[in-house]
Amino acid sequence: MTSAYASLEARFRRLTLLGDAQGVLQWDMAAIMPDGGAGVRGDQLAALKVVSHEILTDRAVGDLLDGAESENRALDPWQRANLVEMRRSWRHATAVPAELVAARSKAVSDCEMAWRTARAANDFKGLLPLLRRVLALTRETAQAKAQALGVAPYDALLDRYEPGGSSREIDALFDDLAAFLPGFTSAVIDKQNRAGAPLPLAGHYPAEGQTRLARELMAAIGFDFAHGRLDISHHPFCGGVPDDVRITTRWNERDWVSGIMAVLHETGHAMYERGLPVAWRYQPVGKARGMSLHESQSLLVEMQACRSRPFVAYLAGRAAAAFGGSGPAWSADNLYKLYTRVERGLIRVEADEVTYPAHVILRYRLEKAMIAGGLDLADLPGAWNESMRELIGVTPPDDKDGCLQDIHWPGGAWGYFPTYTLGAMTAAQLFDAATRAVPAIPDALGRGDFAPLMGWLRANIHEKASSLSGGDLVSVATGRPLDPAVYKRHLTRRYLDA
Amino acid sequence: MTSAYASLEARFRRLTLLGDAQGVLQWDMAAIMPDGGAGVRGDQLAALKVVSHEILTDRAVGDLLDGAESENRALDPWQRANLVEMRRSWRHATAVPAELVAARSKAVSDCEMAWRTARAANDFKGLLPLLRRVLALTRETAQAKAQALGVAPYDALLDRYEPGGSSREIDALFDDLAAFLPGFTSAVIDKQNRAGAPLPLAGHYPAEGQTRLARELMAAIGFDFAHGRLDISHHPFCGGVPDDVRITTRWNERDWVSGIMAVLHETGHAMYERGLPVAWRYQPVGKARGMSLHESQSLLVEMQACRSRPFVAYLAGRAAAAFGGSGPAWSADNLYKLYTRVERGLIRVEADEVTYPAHVILRYRLEKAMIAGGLDLADLPGAWNESMRELIGVTPPDDKDGCLQDIHWPGGAWGYFPTYTLGAMTAAQLFDAATRAVPAIPDALGRGDFAPLMGWLRANIHEKASSLSGGDLVSVATGRPLDPAVYKRHLTRRYLDA
Repeated sequence: MTSAYASLEARFRRLTLLGDAQGVLQWDMAAIMPDGGAGVRGDQLAALKVVSHEILTDRAVGDLLDGAESENRALDPWQRANLVEMRRSWRHATAVPAELVAARSKAVSDCEMAWRTARAANDFKGLLPLLRRVLALTRETAQAKAQALGVAPYDALLDRYEPGGSSREIDALFDDLAAFLPGFTSAVIDKQNRAGAPLPLAGHYPAEGQTRLARELMAAIGFDFAHGRLDISHHPFCGGVPDDVRITTRWNERDWVSGIMAVLHETGHAMYERGLPVAWRYQPVGKARGMSLHESQSLLVEMQACRSRPFVAYLAGRAAAAFGGSGPAWSADNLYKLYTRVERGLIRVEADEVTYPAHVILRYRLEKAMIAGGLDLADLPGAWNESMRELIGVTPPDDKDGCLQDIHWPGGAWGYFPTYTLGAMTAAQLFDAATRAVPAIPDALGRGDFAPLMGWLRANIHEKASSLSGGDLVSVATGRPLDPAVYKRHLTRRYLDA
Repeated sequence: MTSAYASLEARFRRLTLLGDAQGVLQWDMAAIMPDGGAGVRGDQLAALKVVSHEILTDRAVGDLLDGAESENRALDPWQRANLVEMRRSWRHATAVPAELVAARSKAVSDCEMAWRTARAANDFKGLLPLLRRVLALTRETAQAKAQALGVAPYDALLDRYEPGGSSREIDALFDDLAAFLPGFTSAVIDKQNRAGAPLPLAGHYPAEGQTRLARELMAAIGFDFAHGRLDISHHPFCGGVPDDVRITTRWNERDWVSGIMAVLHETGHAMYERGLPVAWRYQPVGKARGMSLHESQSLLVEMQACRSRPFVAYLAGRAAAAFGGSGPAWSADNLYKLYTRVERGLIRVEADEVTYPAHVILRYRLEKAMIAGGLDLADLPGAWNESMRELIGVTPPDDKDGCLQDIHWPGGAWGYFPTYTLGAMTAAQLFDAATRAVPAIPDALGRGDFAPLMGWLRANIHEKASSLSGGDLVSVATGRPLDPAVYKRHLTRRYLDA
């Protein structure tokens, strides 16, 4: 270990710990903080961010990075990968002038606040000036980061969520899917219409019973309650830190199905965090490899494992026992039909597995155009509705359920949307590789036994953290780059062939 | 506002916010963190401490303090008081060499861990070497701080908990009490023996019912649940930050009396935090004025207000309604007898209002001697037991329930103990002044109405924060310095005259 590198490790250890502290404070804010604490919590988080930014952009860090990179040969592969991630963080932090960061942060905060009102009031025009300002400052940020990273502006934004991600590659993957999805969706809906609707699981399911079942299933997946919690929040999420993972959900007492699936989804995220290598806990290379990989882990559990026929059969039994259910509505077949029901809808977060990618592709194409300057925000509602017709086959009656539905753009998060569908494709490809490598996985899932699946994921994904690029992780684990054919085959088998 | 002072305000704003973040993380650790999170949480808190220490001891701060002090006349009284508190923090932080801080922190952590085992095993000898090391490093720290603050070594330790506190003044107050307590205690116990024991409130009181009653009483005192929470922890405490105060308690399902009183105690702490001036939220002068004042606020609510006859009559009614109690055991008289029962016991945290000060005086005298070098730790058990006989009239059968019972010394907290009894004396004197200034207070308490009392406390104590010394706060609010006669009169009226 060289001296410049060692000094960087000490600085990034501190940065990680300050970031972890923010993770816990953010979880608290979303899950249990009383409303009156919002102001001071915002100030605490802002102070932690500024202090972290100062540590990262300290004049010495650039020199240390140069020094460590010139001594590169003395480092082992993980240290070298760690250095690459340090450089990436530093580039992002130093690329943008402090005044631009502050102006954008203020604009985002104003726009997010206004969005809550504008969405409820279906008032896109009212939001427009604020959203214009956020977009203008985000485009300026993208330009600055593009120069620092040596990539196109949109890719520079993408890099924050999907390190090393490339819009050229995403274009190819999404164009392939976009050509496939409309016809496929029609075929699936036709088939499901012929087969008839699933029986509803109407009833009253107290939160306590749902919590007990959720905790039982989390434990089956491998969640260790000595290193994590399950709580309630407005939107389900996975927060905290690897040794203390905090997942949240919400319960609908008239429908246990959605809350339980949200828990399984977040447990997939949590297992990734818990499986990261202990030896690299406080270094950039020890962190999860971007949002696509993270989403792949949640979707692998939720969509691949927990909507597989063997697991749904297991779940049907456990749920009937937990809620005292009986009769045909509680059969494995009916539960499977419920979980695989496809419908053309307006809202992304309510979309099923088949139509979800179309919602994402729509947003990806529009946001790329916004950053490139080819789509004026005044034209967004029209462009949105046209894409909805084309990709999903429905037309939003208003902007509330159209281009105003997501917080991402008001929140300045251009470049985030594609990670949802990259994650879904990655999940399908990893599950396919896992079941080929360990054929016992499906039967084990039928017994509620996740150990074979988690063992494979831990060795092939979790423990590798950020030591490889996202693309290399997938290639090494599955034997090929991300391939839409695998994803389409998964969808076809589940929704048409079965 | 001058430039040096303004720059200091910006730095101390940041320091306060980092400290507040630690407050929330510490609450989380004590109240809801899964055990497996302890390691990383310790690292997060250590990183925040180191970063804060570096901000406070930055070379520029000393110069800024000199500069601001030389421009003192341009500051208003609150700014001047703020500057005094900044200087105090800076003196404490810069007085002790970093190696000594680190060595002491390690020794404390080792000794605290060993204490848990040693206490359970009644093994004072096993703890001795570790405790010797903590004491040696604490004495070294006291020497260094004594030089920086210009006070005696014990007073330099005391200053951390009781800013400006003086052992000479405490000696006088405690000697007075020590002469009074043994005879008074005997007289009270004789009187209570003649009157007969209170009827026990045996029963089963589910935690939910206790929680509901606790929240009702908290709201009556003025606790705002939009700015705070009530949770469960191993030891009750008040944490968080002024705009988001987190209090905790524990429930004993066979005895609702102790848990409810613990909540009332912590609510007193919380009301002080909530009442601090909003304009000075993030500055040292805006913080609570030391541990004695803080304890005075909790004891004022718990001991002065909530064990007053009018409030106990109110509480008896609310409790009977909450738990469905009836009969003579649930009468106001019997509850009052329960709450004012005096017994000679071995354990400080279980002691009643009358014997508690003796437990504290004992510890204060011993810890002063340890810091002065007049008491070797090997002689502690003997000295402890002798003092127990003299001051309380009982002899511990072992060290577990003797000198091993408290975590303070293994935790390095010499100088903390006197604040408990200073707080009790201050509470009596403030309540006496409040009821003289606002004669409606006792009747209002009898209706569960704390507004008159809290209004007086807010104006006379809470809103003044650290703008005055602790002694001046008491003098201004009550018309005289802390006076043991007031405290003794309170005890005499409640326990002998009534």
